[in-house]
Amino acid sequence: MSAEWIAVDWGTTHLRAWIFEGENTPAHSLSSTDGMGSLDHDGFEPALLKLISPHLGDAPTPVICCGMVGARQGWIEAPYAKVPGSPPNARGAARLVAQDPRLDVRILPGMSQAKPADVMRGEETQIAGYLAAHPNFDGVLCLPGTHSKWAHISAGEVVSFRTFMTGEMFALLSKNSVLRHGMAGDGWDDAAFSAAVDDMISRPQSLGSDLFSLRAEGLLNGLSSDSARARLSGLLIGLELAAARPYWLGQAVALIGNDTLASRYAAALAGQGVVAQMLDADAMTLAGLCSAHKTLKEI
Amino acid sequence: MSAEWIAVDWGTTHLRAWIFEGENTPAHSLSSTDGMGSLDHDGFEPALLKLISPHLGDAPTPVICCGMVGARQGWIEAPYAKVPGSPPNARGAARLVAQDPRLDVRILPGMSQAKPADVMRGEETQIAGYLAAHPNFDGVLCLPGTHSKWAHISAGEVVSFRTFMTGEMFALLSKNSVLRHGMAGDGWDDAAFSAAVDDMISRPQSLGSDLFSLRAEGLLNGLSSDSARARLSGLLIGLELAAARPYWLGQAVALIGNDTLASRYAAALAGQGVVAQMLDADAMTLAGLCSAHKTLKEI
Repeated sequence: MSAEWIAVDWGTTHLRAWIFEGENTPAHSLSSTDGMGSLDHDGFEPALLKLISPHLGDAPTPVICCGMVGARQGWIEAPYAKVPGSPPNARGAARLVAQDPRLDVRILPGMSQAKPADVMRGEETQIAGYLAAHPNFDGVLCLPGTHSKWAHISAGEVVSFRTFMTGEMFALLSKNSVLRHGMAGDGWDDAAFSAAVDDMISRPQSLGSDLFSLRAEGLLNGLSSDSARARLSGLLIGLELAAARPYWLGQAVALIGNDTLASRYAAALAGQGVVAQMLDADAMTLAGLCSAHKTLKEI
Repeated sequence: MSAEWIAVDWGTTHLRAWIFEGENTPAHSLSSTDGMGSLDHDGFEPALLKLISPHLGDAPTPVICCGMVGARQGWIEAPYAKVPGSPPNARGAARLVAQDPRLDVRILPGMSQAKPADVMRGEETQIAGYLAAHPNFDGVLCLPGTHSKWAHISAGEVVSFRTFMTGEMFALLSKNSVLRHGMAGDGWDDAAFSAAVDDMISRPQSLGSDLFSLRAEGLLNGLSSDSARARLSGLLIGLELAAARPYWLGQAVALIGNDTLASRYAAALAGQGVVAQMLDADAMTLAGLCSAHKTLKEI
């Protein structure tokens, strides 16, 4: 049976596709490591076909994509939609003429904000997915990740947003800096995490010296790698919460992320008295692509 | 002519030696890339001999070393001297029995602080060099670098110190993060640097989002790589100054560093109304090793 349409989440490191044969739930879920970051301009169509061609019929099949595939270095550039504004749907998508006539590719744009300058690609589709199920939401969405996003949502629009390099800094510091010597394994220490979040909320300027203290505590006092890793995470997430305070203070907050990381943000927010709703990032991406598919049919 | 004694600065990435044939100034200055980080335990003596053996006579020659060579993963561990206390001299050095009888090796220890936990190896010798020329100094020494140090000095002792990962974070973010895309070349922008320092002094918690703004400003507004690099440096040095304020506020400050980096710290401090004395880091290292040599003769 061939696909009615195909939803695609195409990020820097991964390509994922969901094959829809009927209306509501995907019949197949596929993925590869052909991320945008590893592809030349001519590599996108073959990478996509490698994954989905068994599911293509003779007629053109709508393929709705989100993520870095629409960046300047992607397949084709899908210019940013503006903030404040609604997350983009199929009307704002870039349409692509593929070599293979069985493909009818639409690439959803990201969103940009003029001041402070900021951009997102992929998260806007998760936001659209959340809004499809919560059209009257007025509050704040937090999307933890390599580049965490905080977005203020009102009346179906993204009113403002900010990006934080928290996840990328954690990866660099834990794997590539002098701190890597004290971070073996993958254990955790809840108390060390919470204390570090509190430290940053009250003294954010201490980040630079608090980071090196992880090394010194390891050398002088045998700080465990579990505690060091949890404390590093707490320092960086705490710094993010300190800066994002205008977003979460007194607001309804929903967290869209993967289980482990989102639960750490939830714990950090709980320490500040904020109880956040938690939602799965993949489910929101898929819901956002489905929402775009609905608007495609209305064009 | 053979050496009377040899001064050695042995860090993670470099080995440097100064050959003294008389008393006061070195007759030769030598260096190699046989840093401590690239050597096994058995590699230290051959690396040293490769550099200095032409200068050794038949009698044992004192070789006074400072830096990471005395760390746990170094040649032999020279246990930390305690803060508060004087920077270590030859009396506190670890003595090493080398295979080659022409070597009489002494390794100066670093210093450690119990609370907040902190360590230095190498900078204590620069501090000793500064104190040799300024024995009555009461104030603050700032030693910019991969791991910048701020030390409060009084009555010939290091009263307290803190380490900041500023230089290492700059290297990671400018070379290994998403920000590398906007940092080509090696130009500079004074105004962008100063504005970033001011931003961090007034709002240190914004670091995470201010970092990603460099990327967004590049994508949306064509921020130049010169401005982006200077702004990144200003954000990180500004965060350090915000945390080190108790060190520099109302104090006599001397900067010990290399020309370019130290001049950036001087500019940042000048923006806060602090005029810092500037001293060359290599000259201070050599002065510290000479000071240790004097105490060796008194043992």
